[in-house]
Amino acid sequence: MKFYDCAEAPSPRRVRIFLAEKEVELPVVQVDLRAGEQLGEEFRAINPDCTVPVLELDDGTRITEAFAICQYLEAVHPEPPLMGRDPTEAALVTMWNARIEQHGLVAFAELFRNLHKGFRGRAVPGPVDCEQIPALVERGRKRGEAFFNRLDQHFAGNGYVVGNKFTLADITALVGVDFAAWSKLEIGPDRPHLQAWYDRVSSRPSARA
Amino acid sequence: MKFYDCAEAPSPRRVRIFLAEKEVELPVVQVDLRAGEQLGEEFRAINPDCTVPVLELDDGTRITEAFAICQYLEAVHPEPPLMGRDPTEAALVTMWNARIEQHGLVAFAELFRNLHKGFRGRAVPGPVDCEQIPALVERGRKRGEAFFNRLDQHFAGNGYVVGNKFTLADITALVGVDFAAWSKLEIGPDRPHLQAWYDRVSSRPSARA
Repeated sequence: MKFYDCAEAPSPRRVRIFLAEKEVELPVVQVDLRAGEQLGEEFRAINPDCTVPVLELDDGTRITEAFAICQYLEAVHPEPPLMGRDPTEAALVTMWNARIEQHGLVAFAELFRNLHKGFRGRAVPGPVDCEQIPALVERGRKRGEAFFNRLDQHFAGNGYVVGNKFTLADITALVGVDFAAWSKLEIGPDRPHLQAWYDRVSSRPSARA
Repeated sequence: MKFYDCAEAPSPRRVRIFLAEKEVELPVVQVDLRAGEQLGEEFRAINPDCTVPVLELDDGTRITEAFAICQYLEAVHPEPPLMGRDPTEAALVTMWNARIEQHGLVAFAELFRNLHKGFRGRAVPGPVDCEQIPALVERGRKRGEAFFNRLDQHFAGNGYVVGNKFTLADITALVGVDFAAWSKLEIGPDRPHLQAWYDRVSSRPSARA
């Protein structure tokens, strides 16, 4: 296997933390997103979506999306289980992961990519160039704050996202919270339950990945 | 089990087609999205995301996202397999399903929900009210057209989305194409491979679900 990564980027960090929890090491190829390497012909042949992470299998198959990569790694390296131990728990991890992506990561990316000059013309990841839309900065912040509030309520009664066990859903949320901070969207003093969960998961050795 | 549905809506149709392919029938509760039933207190207690589909299990667990629901149904009703027959195929179905959601369904929804007066203040599904942004109509159409082009190229060499077998990824794409047509984003005469695939999958009995 071979792992196409970018050490500074949030999406591949989800896979890096997942691998660290599994204690699996893979050969890594760094893709320089700041230099636009993902948009060049060579990388487009690897992933036409122009994004990392990508997991390349020994038969040449390429898996180009974080959740799908984790699903594959969970199948071939089942211990410790990070995506649920039975069909119900597995569905809840998938559901929460999707919620965190759709209401968290998407909102944080909307805020970040429409705000910073470096993303002019590149407001949406992928092969289609899109101009920044200033109204999305505001909308991303509003949605992001609402999602932080929701997580705070959730962690008032739960130690982890699903089933009081650390799972991929926690990894996605942790990466999301750190990514939101790039745009000065912070947990703040009014979300003590989210803060307590954050302190818990970010103190795991895997969080340094 | 109990299935919260809305007969006119695209997202729960993904689950309806999946169930039809499995020949599984479930008790159904219709949620009247046009009347805003999903925003009322009663439904918020069922799904705080204010969306359908929702699958309620006999132990009361609620799975509130289409892909996660299908994952659960695949585990308890494995035949015929619709989410891959081994870890590699499963990862590819998940990857393509995510691609179709992110680059297809999201773009089609961006176009539709920012265009129609009925969605004023409700441009994003979920509990957070968001005003329409006219620039997203244009962006959604541009991204949607690009995604149709990509699917057309893919189907030039593939009978189905993954592995020349009908899977959940085909269901998601079929529902997406039909949803795009609500905003007059059509396959058109210049995408013959996408059209041939569409004719093939939409002639399956399950497509009437």
